[in-house]
Amino acid sequence: MSRFREPQHPDFVRMNTSVGFDVRLWPQDIAQSRAHANMLAECSIICAADRDALLHGLDQVEAELREQRFAFSEHDEDIHMAIERRVTEITGSVGGRLHTARSRNDQVATDIALYTRDRAHAAQAHITAVMEVLLRRAEEHIDWPMPGYTHLQRGQPVYLAHHLLAYFWMFMRDRERFMFAERQAGGTLPLGAGALAGVNFQTDRRMLARELGFDRPAPNSIDAVANRDFVLDYLSAAATCATHLSRLGVELVLWSSTEFGFCELPDAWSAGSSIMPQKKNPDAAELLRAKAPRVVGHLAALHGVMHALPLTYNKDLQEDKEHLFDAVDTLEISLSAAAGMLSGVAFKREPLASAAGDELIAATDVADLLVQLGVPFREAHGVVAGLVRTAVDAGKRLSQLTSQELAAQSEMLAAHHEQFSEVLSRGSWLESKVSEGGTARARVDEQLKLARTVLDEASASGD
Amino acid sequence: MSRFREPQHPDFVRMNTSVGFDVRLWPQDIAQSRAHANMLAECSIICAADRDALLHGLDQVEAELREQRFAFSEHDEDIHMAIERRVTEITGSVGGRLHTARSRNDQVATDIALYTRDRAHAAQAHITAVMEVLLRRAEEHIDWPMPGYTHLQRGQPVYLAHHLLAYFWMFMRDRERFMFAERQAGGTLPLGAGALAGVNFQTDRRMLARELGFDRPAPNSIDAVANRDFVLDYLSAAATCATHLSRLGVELVLWSSTEFGFCELPDAWSAGSSIMPQKKNPDAAELLRAKAPRVVGHLAALHGVMHALPLTYNKDLQEDKEHLFDAVDTLEISLSAAAGMLSGVAFKREPLASAAGDELIAATDVADLLVQLGVPFREAHGVVAGLVRTAVDAGKRLSQLTSQELAAQSEMLAAHHEQFSEVLSRGSWLESKVSEGGTARARVDEQLKLARTVLDEASASGD
Amino acid sequence: MSRFREPQHPDFVRMNTSVGFDVRLWPQDIAQSRAHANMLAECSIICAADRDALLHGLDQVEAELREQRFAFSEHDEDIHMAIERRVTEITGSVGGRLHTARSRNDQVATDIALYTRDRAHAAQAHITAVMEVLLRRAEEHIDWPMPGYTHLQRGQPVYLAHHLLAYFWMFMRDRERFMFAERQAGGTLPLGAGALAGVNFQTDRRMLARELGFDRPAPNSIDAVANRDFVLDYLSAAATCATHLSRLGVELVLWSSTEFGFCELPDAWSAGSSIMPQKKNPDAAELLRAKAPRVVGHLAALHGVMHALPLTYNKDLQEDKEHLFDAVDTLEISLSAAAGMLSGVAFKREPLASAAGDELIAATDVADLLVQLGVPFREAHGVVAGLVRTAVDAGKRLSQLTSQELAAQSEMLAAHHEQFSEVLSRGSWLESKVSEGGTARARVDEQLKLARTVLDEASASGD
Amino acid sequence: MSRFREPQHPDFVRMNTSVGFDVRLWPQDIAQSRAHANMLAECSIICAADRDALLHGLDQVEAELREQRFAFSEHDEDIHMAIERRVTEITGSVGGRLHTARSRNDQVATDIALYTRDRAHAAQAHITAVMEVLLRRAEEHIDWPMPGYTHLQRGQPVYLAHHLLAYFWMFMRDRERFMFAERQAGGTLPLGAGALAGVNFQTDRRMLARELGFDRPAPNSIDAVANRDFVLDYLSAAATCATHLSRLGVELVLWSSTEFGFCELPDAWSAGSSIMPQKKNPDAAELLRAKAPRVVGHLAALHGVMHALPLTYNKDLQEDKEHLFDAVDTLEISLSAAAGMLSGVAFKREPLASAAGDELIAATDVADLLVQLGVPFREAHGVVAGLVRTAVDAGKRLSQLTSQELAAQSEMLAAHHEQFSEVLSRGSWLESKVSEGGTARARVDEQLKLARTVLDEASASGD
Repeated sequence: MSRFREPQHPDFVRMNTSVGFDVRLWPQDIAQSRAHANMLAECSIICAADRDALLHGLDQVEAELREQRFAFSEHDEDIHMAIERRVTEITGSVGGRLHTARSRNDQVATDIALYTRDRAHAAQAHITAVMEVLLRRAEEHIDWPMPGYTHLQRGQPVYLAHHLLAYFWMFMRDRERFMFAERQAGGTLPLGAGALAGVNFQTDRRMLARELGFDRPAPNSIDAVANRDFVLDYLSAAATCATHLSRLGVELVLWSSTEFGFCELPDAWSAGSSIMPQKKNPDAAELLRAKAPRVVGHLAALHGVMHALPLTYNKDLQEDKEHLFDAVDTLEISLSAAAGMLSGVAFKREPLASAAGDELIAATDVADLLVQLGVPFREAHGVVAGLVRTAVDAGKRLSQLTSQELAAQSEMLAAHHEQFSEVLSRGSWLESKVSEGGTARARVDEQLKLARTVLDEASASGD
Repeated sequence: MSRFREPQHPDFVRMNTSVGFDVRLWPQDIAQSRAHANMLAECSIICAADRDALLHGLDQVEAELREQRFAFSEHDEDIHMAIERRVTEITGSVGGRLHTARSRNDQVATDIALYTRDRAHAAQAHITAVMEVLLRRAEEHIDWPMPGYTHLQRGQPVYLAHHLLAYFWMFMRDRERFMFAERQAGGTLPLGAGALAGVNFQTDRRMLARELGFDRPAPNSIDAVANRDFVLDYLSAAATCATHLSRLGVELVLWSSTEFGFCELPDAWSAGSSIMPQKKNPDAAELLRAKAPRVVGHLAALHGVMHALPLTYNKDLQEDKEHLFDAVDTLEISLSAAAGMLSGVAFKREPLASAAGDELIAATDVADLLVQLGVPFREAHGVVAGLVRTAVDAGKRLSQLTSQELAAQSEMLAAHHEQFSEVLSRGSWLESKVSEGGTARARVDEQLKLARTVLDEASASGD
Repeated sequence: MSRFREPQHPDFVRMNTSVGFDVRLWPQDIAQSRAHANMLAECSIICAADRDALLHGLDQVEAELREQRFAFSEHDEDIHMAIERRVTEITGSVGGRLHTARSRNDQVATDIALYTRDRAHAAQAHITAVMEVLLRRAEEHIDWPMPGYTHLQRGQPVYLAHHLLAYFWMFMRDRERFMFAERQAGGTLPLGAGALAGVNFQTDRRMLARELGFDRPAPNSIDAVANRDFVLDYLSAAATCATHLSRLGVELVLWSSTEFGFCELPDAWSAGSSIMPQKKNPDAAELLRAKAPRVVGHLAALHGVMHALPLTYNKDLQEDKEHLFDAVDTLEISLSAAAGMLSGVAFKREPLASAAGDELIAATDVADLLVQLGVPFREAHGVVAGLVRTAVDAGKRLSQLTSQELAAQSEMLAAHHEQFSEVLSRGSWLESKVSEGGTARARVDEQLKLARTVLDEASASGD
Repeated sequence: MSRFREPQHPDFVRMNTSVGFDVRLWPQDIAQSRAHANMLAECSIICAADRDALLHGLDQVEAELREQRFAFSEHDEDIHMAIERRVTEITGSVGGRLHTARSRNDQVATDIALYTRDRAHAAQAHITAVMEVLLRRAEEHIDWPMPGYTHLQRGQPVYLAHHLLAYFWMFMRDRERFMFAERQAGGTLPLGAGALAGVNFQTDRRMLARELGFDRPAPNSIDAVANRDFVLDYLSAAATCATHLSRLGVELVLWSSTEFGFCELPDAWSAGSSIMPQKKNPDAAELLRAKAPRVVGHLAALHGVMHALPLTYNKDLQEDKEHLFDAVDTLEISLSAAAGMLSGVAFKREPLASAAGDELIAATDVADLLVQLGVPFREAHGVVAGLVRTAVDAGKRLSQLTSQELAAQSEMLAAHHEQFSEVLSRGSWLESKVSEGGTARARVDEQLKLARTVLDEASASGD
């Protein structure tokens, strides 16, 4: 089949052969070949009998692959060649007609687009499952106070539900990203672009697009075979989602430390130590944290592969697959792990509440009291900073400061000592955050309702 | 204003200070402060007189900044502090009220979201300009044959218009990506989320969202201050767009080499050599090629910053800005350069046509002839490979092969020697790619029309 | 000076001009020009009078640049052109002779190599300063127990000195990496390679190498102008060092949280909050954490620039500079911040000791006791895991378990209840880690001595 | 063996299990276990009989693994557990003693260090093989002129040998990088650091270091288990080497294009096209080009994993392995491919020479002639640029310019028309580059000799 005299060097064969990883594209390859055979017959490029033979051959190959009894040959460089070889074994020379009016270049691009579209769709379902768990756990912990942190310093108290819902909205955006990626992958169909310039047959690419669920045929054959944008779109969505998961991972690691003591991870997602028998290690949460750079690395690597690549198809494009496949596997298992850990994690009400009750974190509310008394915000902030310094130096809590100590910072505050004490009585701090999207109970209720609506819409629309 | 006794270390001040680069956010900061002041008054949190004073102060500050006569103080850590300081100088203590019911955390997130939304919008206009040029140049070169390449080997001839349009569709997808990024940046408004938990005032965040052109307030205050997804969305769109530009860049470099000789770049976008006086170097095209890894680096770096970052706001988020700003500058100048080079490049009809006339690239068409004569595709491919080998070995062109030489590969072909010769007569090869999206003239006409429609729709929708 | 008719497009000029950032190369450019002028005279390529004029001109230019009164022209594309222009203004037409027998390509490569060598040397000094601080702080906290962590779970107690010294050895390896980078940058001198092929003069490149402190002239002119490996070497060392700093950063953030409470950062390296007056935020430590991805991004970006770049010089190489310069600035300020924070951080003995006294972390020692009593390790591990489960379930400490409870897991252990109790008495756990490199006091003393030796050798060798 | 009640979730097991990829560490794991058993006996921690049993068990396990008849159990999470389980099956309860005085943390770090050291050593041999081929091919093509390029524009002619040797020196630097990586991996031995704090036994870590070929034991147990710098060192060397290979790859792609026509790749490293029978595609060269971003991605990803990771061991570190293993495989096959292609590539003397004879590239020599006649360099450069413009406009070659045309640019030149003509007679240009490291024949001979010496030294030193 080649113009060459010498056989390929074994190292080149090893470098070149992709069947070891592209085997997973078989469902897509079968699907496209079915559509292609149908179209060829519809356009009278092959006869009906040939189409039937091809479809029958494809059915048999599919069964062999599904049941894992497909016999690969050592000459099968890739899954496309393997399937075509087998179809030809089954159907005889008619098998050779399957490659009419397409080339490896558009065929591969089509398989990858189909695969990417499928996994972008699946990612949305995985994410929805995580969102469901988050919403459920938020509903269960709606009135559990905990400290909110900035700079990992306790800042202001919030409800645990509010903190958990922060992740809900992150993942909602991830779902939007995968929705975009799915649309891009399923937008324009490469199939029928041929090697680069189109094919010498009056094909019906719109029929192909319809059968394979694409919006329309790719309008330019050169772009069709040179394009892997949709893989980048998937990887980009995956990189951001994995990064979100790494934030969740690090918080689970922190919270399950003795120092925080905010939660206990489920046994089913924890590991022991080979040498320290007391350890319960958050291995799964750590892996969530560690997987993000891997997915980001795949994204950067594929951008690198595409960098400075002349049109049209170049062998470099074979490098799209392993980056994509590993990113898919990594992301999907990570989302499962996140759902599993979030489902099973046991939060600890008392340590959370006790940390939330740290009087220092009422400081903002004291400043706000002064503002309400007419002190400009910046001045109020300075007064409270002075109070904190006084308290820390004296080893006192804020509520233990005397009127004299208050007056040293602000006469106004000393004159309202009672209100000051009231502000420091816990709970009011939390409920004071009444703005939309804030942590006051009524606002969190509102938010839970909104989150539920969002999820219901998603399931109504079939995700 | 602080609980500290010791002053900050000069190196820390240097590390911490961002006014050197975040000064470019002043228009966004002024805009959000105006909206905030209006809302505070509307909700009776400040009185109308205070609002008027604040708006007047903001007007003056804006004028000073616009006319570059704003006097920065050495204590201005960032542009937000500089503006607030100056407003307070102008308005007196009322200036301090501007920070009521917001914090630096939601303020910064809002400025960045506004800025990102603006630049994502601007990127679409820049891209549209490149698409316009591509379409115009394609229309001018509609019937110029050139070789299409795979693996940088001549594969099949195409029209230059067809090749140029491949970039048109790439950039159209880039525009879709920036549209998505714009939507994400302008989706949910962080402002009013306070430091992390919401604010102690009954604010009207929907009014803020309306005034600033966001879809709605961010539903969760924690997420609002911890989120930089929209910057990642911009950077991701920019990374892919820059990668496309690098493909254009490398082709301009190749095509303007003596070896290809397909085009001459405009003087206005070329450089001489300090030592080789004859050189006309494609520096701008090379920079297009070289900038993609820079933008990809920014994307990976921001993913890295967000990696393993506990909620909510952390100082690490300050690292969003320089990555974003440099990516914006890099992308916008690169798109200008692409438009400039594409506008001015002079294609060379004769070298393109001569390369397209290379008889070897008719080989696919010879194989297709055999298919039309009933030979299965794979067998036809083998026959032609044999012909090529024969011709190369004999130092002949394909059209110089004798009937005996043809028969040695295929009796069928020898029997149709005349049709074989006809196929090898140039032009027919090109026009044979009649499938939708192919390079046959009628198909390219169709494509040009579609491209024109796409552009018209874009300008109708206001881009 | 050019073969062009049209002027360059303003956007191209903006894209192409590097003087805004390469100005910092002026000391290197002056140094190389001096050496070059001397060599040209020595080889009789220019006369002594010309050399003297050039040297005099260079002196004056250096003074103008040093005193920041050098007047840049708008036509100065880069610092090399600016200096040469000014030398020519000062010396008249003899200035033009300075560019004899060199080209911009070897000149730029030489400046960058000199700069990289200098900064790689400086990085070692910065790192040594951090190592000094670490060693001093370790010596001050030699007998302060604290918990050692794996998976952020308390594992085994260690001395704070031991933990601090872990960073000492990391930074020692970073120093070795910069030593390697310095050697690579100062290995082979590009100067004299000309544009790409060498120059038409009998130059003495060995004299140049000697004067500029390189090992030898680059043996191949093509490689000399196409090579930026030494920048990659610097960036690689910087990326790993910045990553180490991010680990230090995250630990300072954790340790200064209320939950850990292990240390208080110095005011001089902390920040307040604009809205929460009680906050003392570890901004500098967070920036240490956030800067690593930036440096890693620069490394990946320069690898990307070099990717698929044909020989020899291409304009793409101009992209080496900004990546390098920003990495240098980032790394140097980060190392200063690390030294500053480590110098001033106040560790808190009691919370550290109390956490180290957590009885659960004696579990390994209990297992080791069983091993010493003849139980195979794996079995011993299982016994102790059972004890931990019993204790956690019963809400008891290990030392509160009864002999019956012990016997339920191991008769052997019940029979040695006294030794069991002894093991649980704190201190012995820590001192039990007697292996070389372990945390037992004598081993830490040994380690401190070794660290001191390492530092002394470094200063003896002039770093 | 655990304190847990619930079994691990199947998805967690899948996520956590590493035996699928860390199986390749078996030789290292066996080697370290042998050394460990010997040391334990030497230190009387186990008795001689136990040691003998362990060594015998290890022998048997090694044989089973080598002969691929080792039966993995579904509970074998990693290769370490698999080997220990099997040793225990063979030796009975004594097997459990093998884990005395070490932990999984130091054990894994040791295996990885051993593996990295081995592969860094192997990489040097692979690189040396490529250098050998380059030197041989350079020797074969010592007097073949070809154009040297800057900006992919023909600049100055060089000998093909000179161009090939440019790669020789690149790879020599790569070898130095791997030498450094090997030293770092083999520097300090983690084994014996225990879980994090050292072990409770008087072990002899120096004996271990000697037996396993390390310089010395790691001086700090915390650093020992938290450190993966040596993997970063390998990946960094690999990333730069792969980037060099991508430059070689792109040049082979360019040179084997019809447009350049400088070489024909060997059949053994080329591929055909499924649809275009005439194609001979440089797939292996393209893969060389495409693999660099993959290795760079692994480096960035591991930097990302280490980013912000608190000490000591965290599960995240398991992510070191797949990045390393894939980089090793990718690099080694790429180097084989480079050696194979370089060995077999057939350069084409005539097209190279013809391109080198392009008269325009003598322009620098014309400028140098003017300099020798006393014209300052910059002025000379301008004169020649004018000549080039005149020639290009008139459609003439430089040698066809009349004395009047010369005089219009430079009276001086017109007065030396004969010398001008002489300069334009090819060959002299090439031989004029007489500076050290230049392309003049004598200089290339010098360089070949130096390269031969470098290679001989390498083999003498045992690489």
